[in-house]
Amino acid sequence: MKKPHIVITFPDGKQKEYQKGVTLEEIAQSISPGLKKASAAGKVNGSLYDLRRSIHEDAEIELCSFQSEEGLGVMRHTAAHVLAQAVKRLYPKVCLGTGPVIENGFYYDFDMNETITERELAVIEKEMNRIISENPEIIREEISREEAEHLFAHEPLKLELLADIPQQDTISIYRQSDFIDLCRGPHLASAGQIKAFSLTHVSGAYWRGDSNQKMLQRIYGKAFSSKKELNRHFQLIKEAEKRNHRKLGAELQLFMFSEEAPGMPFYLPNGQFIRNTLESFLRSKQDAYHYQEVRTPMMMNQRLWEQSGHWDHYKENMYFSEADHQRFALKPMNCPGHMLIFKEKLRSYRDLPIRMAEFGQVHRHEFSGALNGLLRVRSFCQDDAHIFVTPDQIESEITSALQLIHEVYTAFGFSYDIELSTRPDNYMGSEHLWDRAESALEKVLKEQGYRFRFNRGDGAFYGPKIDIHIKDALNRSHQCATVQLDFQMPEKFDLTYIDEKNQKVRPVVIHRAVFGSLDRFFGIITEHFGGAFPLWLAPVQAKIIPVSNTAHRDCAEQAHRQLKNAGIRAELDLRDEKLGYKIREAQMKKIPYIAVVGDHECRHQSLQVRQYGREDTFEESVGDFVSRIINETKQEIQVNRH
Amino acid sequence: MKKPHIVITFPDGKQKEYQKGVTLEEIAQSISPGLKKASAAGKVNGSLYDLRRSIHEDAEIELCSFQSEEGLGVMRHTAAHVLAQAVKRLYPKVCLGTGPVIENGFYYDFDMNETITERELAVIEKEMNRIISENPEIIREEISREEAEHLFAHEPLKLELLADIPQQDTISIYRQSDFIDLCRGPHLASAGQIKAFSLTHVSGAYWRGDSNQKMLQRIYGKAFSSKKELNRHFQLIKEAEKRNHRKLGAELQLFMFSEEAPGMPFYLPNGQFIRNTLESFLRSKQDAYHYQEVRTPMMMNQRLWEQSGHWDHYKENMYFSEADHQRFALKPMNCPGHMLIFKEKLRSYRDLPIRMAEFGQVHRHEFSGALNGLLRVRSFCQDDAHIFVTPDQIESEITSALQLIHEVYTAFGFSYDIELSTRPDNYMGSEHLWDRAESALEKVLKEQGYRFRFNRGDGAFYGPKIDIHIKDALNRSHQCATVQLDFQMPEKFDLTYIDEKNQKVRPVVIHRAVFGSLDRFFGIITEHFGGAFPLWLAPVQAKIIPVSNTAHRDCAEQAHRQLKNAGIRAELDLRDEKLGYKIREAQMKKIPYIAVVGDHECRHQSLQVRQYGREDTFEESVGDFVSRIINETKQEIQVNRH
Repeated sequence: MKKPHIVITFPDGKQKEYQKGVTLEEIAQSISPGLKKASAAGKVNGSLYDLRRSIHEDAEIELCSFQSEEGLGVMRHTAAHVLAQAVKRLYPKVCLGTGPVIENGFYYDFDMNETITERELAVIEKEMNRIISENPEIIREEISREEAEHLFAHEPLKLELLADIPQQDTISIYRQSDFIDLCRGPHLASAGQIKAFSLTHVSGAYWRGDSNQKMLQRIYGKAFSSKKELNRHFQLIKEAEKRNHRKLGAELQLFMFSEEAPGMPFYLPNGQFIRNTLESFLRSKQDAYHYQEVRTPMMMNQRLWEQSGHWDHYKENMYFSEADHQRFALKPMNCPGHMLIFKEKLRSYRDLPIRMAEFGQVHRHEFSGALNGLLRVRSFCQDDAHIFVTPDQIESEITSALQLIHEVYTAFGFSYDIELSTRPDNYMGSEHLWDRAESALEKVLKEQGYRFRFNRGDGAFYGPKIDIHIKDALNRSHQCATVQLDFQMPEKFDLTYIDEKNQKVRPVVIHRAVFGSLDRFFGIITEHFGGAFPLWLAPVQAKIIPVSNTAHRDCAEQAHRQLKNAGIRAELDLRDEKLGYKIREAQMKKIPYIAVVGDHECRHQSLQVRQYGREDTFEESVGDFVSRIINETKQEIQVNRH
Repeated sequence: MKKPHIVITFPDGKQKEYQKGVTLEEIAQSISPGLKKASAAGKVNGSLYDLRRSIHEDAEIELCSFQSEEGLGVMRHTAAHVLAQAVKRLYPKVCLGTGPVIENGFYYDFDMNETITERELAVIEKEMNRIISENPEIIREEISREEAEHLFAHEPLKLELLADIPQQDTISIYRQSDFIDLCRGPHLASAGQIKAFSLTHVSGAYWRGDSNQKMLQRIYGKAFSSKKELNRHFQLIKEAEKRNHRKLGAELQLFMFSEEAPGMPFYLPNGQFIRNTLESFLRSKQDAYHYQEVRTPMMMNQRLWEQSGHWDHYKENMYFSEADHQRFALKPMNCPGHMLIFKEKLRSYRDLPIRMAEFGQVHRHEFSGALNGLLRVRSFCQDDAHIFVTPDQIESEITSALQLIHEVYTAFGFSYDIELSTRPDNYMGSEHLWDRAESALEKVLKEQGYRFRFNRGDGAFYGPKIDIHIKDALNRSHQCATVQLDFQMPEKFDLTYIDEKNQKVRPVVIHRAVFGSLDRFFGIITEHFGGAFPLWLAPVQAKIIPVSNTAHRDCAEQAHRQLKNAGIRAELDLRDEKLGYKIREAQMKKIPYIAVVGDHECRHQSLQVRQYGREDTFEESVGDFVSRIINETKQEIQVNRH
């Protein structure tokens, strides 16, 4: 009897008939042996499947390569099983916990008496490689609860997990040679398909993350689709460590921390210069976009925060103080202060939009364990703006806010991704206003030609928002800028303006931040540039070094004066040190240009110039060197229209 | 028998013999009748005396004119007696309190049932004028305690004062016709010598300033050496009221206050522009003087404030908060943060001087009754610097700090007075260091040709200081800048540097502020300029107004663009309002230049220009107008060397 057929639909819409019970692997093979080899797993009607699982109904399928996020995830999951198998072989008495996939890799938790150290990790890794070369097939089985209880009788942690699986759910196990794990899958077809992995470290971890439970040993590993990718990953980590902003902050004397003020940065002169430059750069951009800067108090009465809703939602993260028997809060946000300014006068539709900006120092409590250099602090400067608009002005204001953000980000060489978050379930305000606002945001993004993705249901309860994620030089993503519509704040503060018909109506508020936190942004760019700040941000742009402090002092001083007069941040190194030492030190400080002055240069009123990060030097007249620095600086912050 | 003679020495060193018992009045008369007439009182061996008091020993004397501070004080004191005499005549049952001299005038406190209002003040003033025209002689008498008790039997408050006079002290009274007062003096020779006075207002005042005591009525008056001076004084008060920064702050939309944050200013866009300009102006000056800017946390652990001594001396004025079960204080000063930065690295004598500056937002509690616009606030930005020096560097650093202060103040058109305050009784630190420091400060002031006066014993316990008092356009004095030596802070924080001999030694710290409080300084200059800020500070430098919004719009827009491109803060007024209204409004906003564009100006690419405060207008090409504004702005902030 001929087996019945099912219809398989491919991602491009093409359809083909296969025998019922066909596997993804067979389908791949039917197209090309190369495709079969390249596939780690596949999707059946959107769900991730093992390659060898049978399909019994018509289905839409998609194959997942070893390079895809899904394929990598499946491979990492399999690597976790191989890790568990290896540990089980080496330490037969071990009890298994769980072994999930994490970013770039996997881990597995073990309950065992032996302490795993670096040395043991190497042995385990060797055993894993042996298993991979044995290339056992990985087989999925669906079994009854009783069978499972029998199978894991000696694995008390697995029994616990088993007990938590709801009665009606299917129980699946995965088997590779003598190793069995309770697992939902999916996995690779065989262990030999693991392309490249490495165990990295071991740490303690409470069973189920609960500090009342037993402490297990957690072994971490990384896995990638090739040795090359794995190496690139370790290379990036090394680079990230080199670029760690806390390390660079100390080396380049940018900032420091003190136990007298945990989570609150002290900016040293170099860092304060950059911080001021960031601020004045954005200020000049905001001027061009007709923002008006204000400054509101650091501390305001608790009742104001009750009115704004911060008290209800945020008081755990706020700092309080007392004066005249009243409670005051250190501001965690600038909104309420700006609302008070808006309310100070009668506003007319003719006054709108009002673009009110502040570089506001805010305080927000974070657990001391969560603090991380400038990236997670307790006090930071928020480049906060509130734009008060009529509903008609939403589109044009969103457009120019995005344009401003674009100009600022491109000055740092950041690319970025855009997300549009729409109404959540618990949204407040009229449906009509939400419809209008969401479509306004979408329309702007489309009309202006931005690529973006929806994040449906992830808007704030007070309005939809656009979040912008920058990509740094190491391809890491950071959410910085945000543009949010707010229909609630105007209600809470009873804001009104007089419209064309002489009626009092509510404005809409747009919250907007570009850097987000000036301090965090500083941390991000420190890592992004690896401390080698571009000319426009560099506290010292050029270091002039005479070959001899006596013979070439005059020429060096003259060159230095010429640079200073042109407004260039140049320093002259006349210390009693060797030339080589001075050059090395200037390089360590990542100063963009080093200019050496010797006999030849003195005669020709020139400089021997070395640009940071390059080996070669070139001779240039002092005048040309001045022009070079001025022109390059200009180019760096040139307006780059979207 | 011939009376014995005494030798009188005059201020110019000349000596002359007089009969023993001669009075200052007789001496003045012996020189010229004009001198006698011009003298209100005199000094005998440095003590202020009645003109008619006899001199019985050789003495140095000095006559005090009605224009001198001492002469004015004596006249105001006599005016207080005349006030008391008038009240006593009009309300015979009144009990007298005290009647001292205050700035520009005097007051007297009365215990009486009748309430004194404006109307009664006029009657009292009339009675005072009657007494003055009666011109009673004012006679000093020294009497016994018993006589005094008898004399003031019906004046219970005077009896209280009498009881407080130490037993061995002389008791003196002053008598004018039927009026007697218990008084140390001195006074004018007769009431008719009071040149010009006016009663101003009445208020309640507790007896001896103690709220547990009886409430008295205090009548205030002003007195000057001529009617002209008195009128000028009232003119100045009127002008000061017009210039009141709180009034101008609202009119020009510079800043506002809210009951949600008492004593903590909200800067509106115009005010924030000026605030930022003040900050960047000083920043550029500090750059030129090789300061390094830092930024330290707003909130630091209480133990740091205990270490710095602020806890002991200042905790009543500090705000506290809590985090992680520890107490933190909002910084009332920036010093401790700067000390932590200094301590962060090993410092060598080669690194010194280190000039560490911060625009630091500090919080200091003030009673709500003491708050006064920007002049007395609870949170302000201090332009604080700490200069870490070797003892050898004190002189040169003080010199350049004073030079910097001079450059900044002259940019605002302020003149200033300098006071050198020397060691107080409770000084700390070695006598040798104090000697050296005081003579260093004195030497600098003398060598640099500054006029200054000593304020002996008024230095801080931690070191001597130079205080600088600016004089504003209304001749009022404000202490703003200070330069203080500090030997204690380096001890408290155990600061050291490595000297030439490789020894750890203590640096000296110089505290320095130029504006003092940026906020208060802003308040002062608002009044100083009467809100008509000079070009370099004006938020809007020029307003362009077309005669017709249709016919002259293009030319006006072109002129506006030309100004904006040259970096001038120009605004174009295209509102649908009348020309006259727009001009008046721009004048109310005290905009430095108004430029009108009509037919003629369009044809000639020119502007009809009106400078603030002038009636006339003049025609100027747009190009020349641009140059005018740029040049005038440059001139305003030109470096003005001491």
